[in-house]
Amino acid sequence: MKHLLTINDLSLMEIEQILHDAQGFSKGEKWNPAEKTFAANLFFEPSTRTRMSFEVAQKKLGFEVLNLDCGFSSTQKGETLYDTVRTMEEIGAKAAVIRHSKDRYFEELAGKVNIPIINAGDGCGNHPTQSLLDLLTIQQEFIVLQGLKVVIVGDIRHSRVARSNAEILHRLGAKVYFSGPREWYDTSLAEDQYLSMDEACEMADVLMMLRIQHERHECKSGMTSGQYHEAYGLTPAREKRMKDQAIIMHPAPVNRGVEIADELVECERSRIFKQMNNGVNVRMAVLKWALEANLKEETANGYLVKGW
Amino acid sequence: MKHLLTINDLSLMEIEQILHDAQGFSKGEKWNPAEKTFAANLFFEPSTRTRMSFEVAQKKLGFEVLNLDCGFSSTQKGETLYDTVRTMEEIGAKAAVIRHSKDRYFEELAGKVNIPIINAGDGCGNHPTQSLLDLLTIQQEFIVLQGLKVVIVGDIRHSRVARSNAEILHRLGAKVYFSGPREWYDTSLAEDQYLSMDEACEMADVLMMLRIQHERHECKSGMTSGQYHEAYGLTPAREKRMKDQAIIMHPAPVNRGVEIADELVECERSRIFKQMNNGVNVRMAVLKWALEANLKEETANGYLVKGW
Amino acid sequence: MKHLLTINDLSLMEIEQILHDAQGFSKGEKWNPAEKTFAANLFFEPSTRTRMSFEVAQKKLGFEVLNLDCGFSSTQKGETLYDTVRTMEEIGAKAAVIRHSKDRYFEELAGKVNIPIINAGDGCGNHPTQSLLDLLTIQQEFIVLQGLKVVIVGDIRHSRVARSNAEILHRLGAKVYFSGPREWYDTSLAEDQYLSMDEACEMADVLMMLRIQHERHECKSGMTSGQYHEAYGLTPAREKRMKDQAIIMHPAPVNRGVEIADELVECERSRIFKQMNNGVNVRMAVLKWALEANLKEETANGYLVKGW
Repeated sequence: MKHLLTINDLSLMEIEQILHDAQGFSKGEKWNPAEKTFAANLFFEPSTRTRMSFEVAQKKLGFEVLNLDCGFSSTQKGETLYDTVRTMEEIGAKAAVIRHSKDRYFEELAGKVNIPIINAGDGCGNHPTQSLLDLLTIQQEFIVLQGLKVVIVGDIRHSRVARSNAEILHRLGAKVYFSGPREWYDTSLAEDQYLSMDEACEMADVLMMLRIQHERHECKSGMTSGQYHEAYGLTPAREKRMKDQAIIMHPAPVNRGVEIADELVECERSRIFKQMNNGVNVRMAVLKWALEANLKEETANGYLVKGW
Repeated sequence: MKHLLTINDLSLMEIEQILHDAQGFSKGEKWNPAEKTFAANLFFEPSTRTRMSFEVAQKKLGFEVLNLDCGFSSTQKGETLYDTVRTMEEIGAKAAVIRHSKDRYFEELAGKVNIPIINAGDGCGNHPTQSLLDLLTIQQEFIVLQGLKVVIVGDIRHSRVARSNAEILHRLGAKVYFSGPREWYDTSLAEDQYLSMDEACEMADVLMMLRIQHERHECKSGMTSGQYHEAYGLTPAREKRMKDQAIIMHPAPVNRGVEIADELVECERSRIFKQMNNGVNVRMAVLKWALEANLKEETANGYLVKGW
Repeated sequence: MKHLLTINDLSLMEIEQILHDAQGFSKGEKWNPAEKTFAANLFFEPSTRTRMSFEVAQKKLGFEVLNLDCGFSSTQKGETLYDTVRTMEEIGAKAAVIRHSKDRYFEELAGKVNIPIINAGDGCGNHPTQSLLDLLTIQQEFIVLQGLKVVIVGDIRHSRVARSNAEILHRLGAKVYFSGPREWYDTSLAEDQYLSMDEACEMADVLMMLRIQHERHECKSGMTSGQYHEAYGLTPAREKRMKDQAIIMHPAPVNRGVEIADELVECERSRIFKQMNNGVNVRMAVLKWALEANLKEETANGYLVKGW
């Protein structure tokens, strides 16, 4: 059973295929399963864009969508995550998209469930479809990632996206740098260079802002929002010093005036809303990948799967 | 970009067209967009009938529906309404239906978003699809509105519906009167006549009850529910004095035994449940209007819009 | 108007037909209404599997689904259940699935609504689709229920399922026994035999565990979970003494290690996940039954119903 739990579950060839399919979907290409297919979205943490993005992706693929509202369900009755997922499987779901506040929640499922799990974010850990949509956005811009200078700015330590993006960008040949408050720097990523925000803006081909996670830690490193913005935010003055072709990315939701000046959110360099658009196409490609990979596996194991 | 934010956004000709289409839908006529179309429902306030009514309308038109559960989303993370709507647009929504507790919430969106906004209620302000369904209900009964006597009863001051209904009924030639507690009367509507409840019942062709908004202000003008009913409610005795062809309307949900006696909610004169039925058809017509109007506009601007 | 409020609303012939249809659906048979059909799910109590199971059933039948999130709706505004159901009817729902914490909530609806009500659980009362899926699971195993020994274990008194299952199993010729804490035994069922858990395991063809309803009463009869498991739970030792063909059932969600040992939840005798699968097929059959029965009735009354 193939799952997408971390970006490292994918070979470079699989990543290439997914980005290729996503680009195709963005151009209007279509793919649908042969029969009515149910997907379950189990979100145990708040999310607008990720859940909606998956829902649109599923519906564009012609899936029937089962949304489990996790504030109002049997999980209140103390059911295990495993039992919830197995239930979804028994009632007909062919894939489960899960977001959970617990790091690596999926370890209790591995090897035990018979439908692919797509990780939509686990605690401070992984968010592989975000990494893929970031890659798609960069690839659309620069085509080749080899040698590209990507600076990730913000709370590296608590970010789902930062570490998995850093890893996959390394694997794909990009040079990854970091900026932001020193105490948020993750020293386990020592081979990469730490830059001041001013250096970062001058050097970056891709300036990848992270979100200040108000909901995960109380303060912005002891600073007010204004002080943070001055020290580590993308101000209009810094934006002017960026290279001609350089782009700005942010996973959103944006704290306007904190990570990035209000007037830059939709500036010419900004790919922030483009990323959201790419998110749908990448998730379509991931769902296609998951269903096709597991179809092949099951056929190889001697099953003929109805409905495909 | 055409939006439906207040009833005054519509010309009389547009209103006529919408009511005509709605009547057609009520007779089983069909209209569907050429390709898969997503609509987003963003409800930042509780609602059963309005949200469900839009959802049925959308699904009857063959739309895919995105419901944003606003107690469980990124709006908790402090995202602006603008960013939420832009996100919906980027992930593929072709229209957004919004209810919000803030008066004129839509002003921060005007001129900035590229999909039509359908206002499903803003604070104490507007609720244009409610006005349209009320008009359809009256038109089905009386055909011509010119000279019709409509009495609006209840909390004029805090009602989304009262003022917009009064305005549009004026524009269409009806005579509008008010009844209910004096302190709820809106003196800015001075040209209209204030009536006692007994006068109102004798004179009205249409008795348009408003809902006591328990959730917006604490008391019923200092009275108990029973006292309110006695003074301003539609009692069986008052109903008997109504004109032969006169009808009773209420936007619902009804407080049975307060605005209207329990046994009158479904009496022969009552159009209360008919109004709900009309609500679906009117919303279908509004969605059709919004998509067609903007299609024309975009084509006029030189775009060819895919999917239409 | 035919409703499914309690299992006793069905004749044995109707039960046979529903189980037959459900079995057909489990084999891939299809049935769809001729036109777009809306079903409303009104859940006033938390539920994962029942609500999702109905939603899958509805979508497999090609219905459009209206989910009323009852923590976020006009029911907060004090609307009666009757008015909520009538609203759903007016906006186009052709069936309503309702779960409510109030025993026999449906009595206020009887004879007053014009769409079939499918009871998805009322208070401590009835849960007829659970009974039907239990019957289907037993029938798949043993074909004939005549003379079969079924032991229901647990909180008979507070269980929706226990009493309705006991009744229908009697009607179908099975012998029903009970086990569990004495104070949870329902003496109104006096003709049936009360067994110790050890006796129960040795005698049962079907061991039907009930769920400990933590959310309905505080303690497990004054015992810790471990003590309960030792006294009345299905332990590995007890499982070994079960008859060769005997099966284990549980309506889920399971309290692992309380009603049943963790490692037995998916043991060879367990039909627990099979029951969930059967739930979808039974609910498809019930919806088909409800729509067809009421179609016949309306036609008989001289109406020609559009859309069927």
